[in-house]
Amino acid sequence: MTLLRVDHTAVIVRDIDQTLERYRLIFGILPGERTMVPDQDVEVAFLPLGGTQLELIRPTSPTSGAGRFLERRGEGLHHVAFLVEDVRAELKRLSDEGVELIDTEPRRGGRHLIAFVHPRATGGILVELVQHEGDQQLQA
Amino acid sequence: MTLLRVDHTAVIVRDIDQTLERYRLIFGILPGERTMVPDQDVEVAFLPLGGTQLELIRPTSPTSGAGRFLERRGEGLHHVAFLVEDVRAELKRLSDEGVELIDTEPRRGGRHLIAFVHPRATGGILVELVQHEGDQQLQA
Repeated sequence: MTLLRVDHTAVIVRDIDQTLERYRLIFGILPGERTMVPDQDVEVAFLPLGGTQLELIRPTSPTSGAGRFLERRGEGLHHVAFLVEDVRAELKRLSDEGVELIDTEPRRGGRHLIAFVHPRATGGILVELVQHEGDQQLQA
Repeated sequence: MTLLRVDHTAVIVRDIDQTLERYRLIFGILPGERTMVPDQDVEVAFLPLGGTQLELIRPTSPTSGAGRFLERRGEGLHHVAFLVEDVRAELKRLSDEGVELIDTEPRRGGRHLIAFVHPRATGGILVELVQHEGDQQLQA
């Protein structure tokens, strides 16, 4: 697998405004892109940080994956995303190797293609694979 | 605060050998430095990844901070570490601003100087500040 870098580390939060303000005050981190992702029932904000990013995720529904995480474990670290060149090819390779996947096909995550590997395959960490600006690959 | 980059994202694991082998097979990530940290009752391994690192932490005692985390929450993401130029200066600034800290003074973490900010200050994320090759600062 060609892992290019850690694309982002994601955190579940209750209040994005409050968290952005806190990160600005404490760490001097300024917010980047912020968007609603209705099909996942979340609002997300990205904070650029030295070649990688923090992603703040606010559940907009208690029954979404992120909402259930917040209910069960409270605010905290949620997943790590690795940037790859071709998420579809990586999923095929992982699947062929018997690695347990959450997504067997790439799906849209904002402007990107994403897929999640099951935490059971990675020793408890939810790993996202993300491919930038590859929406045309969804048609492949 | 001058945050240079995400130094590492840390994960608590039960078995470092098994996890290293899994990460090699699944993601093609090769291990870097590996060391025992007796005063924190952990063994750690770093996996370099595109300008940042994953840190695997294996508790060697169930009563250490990492051991209690593993007992309570199982394997999973533990903290994010931001690289700073001067951890002592940052701690002073944060303390002056009333930010809740776990460490009010830097301590050694392997060859580096580290300090933890309390998750209550950051919206649930355990944040480590790390300064590289600054051991002489402990004497300041």
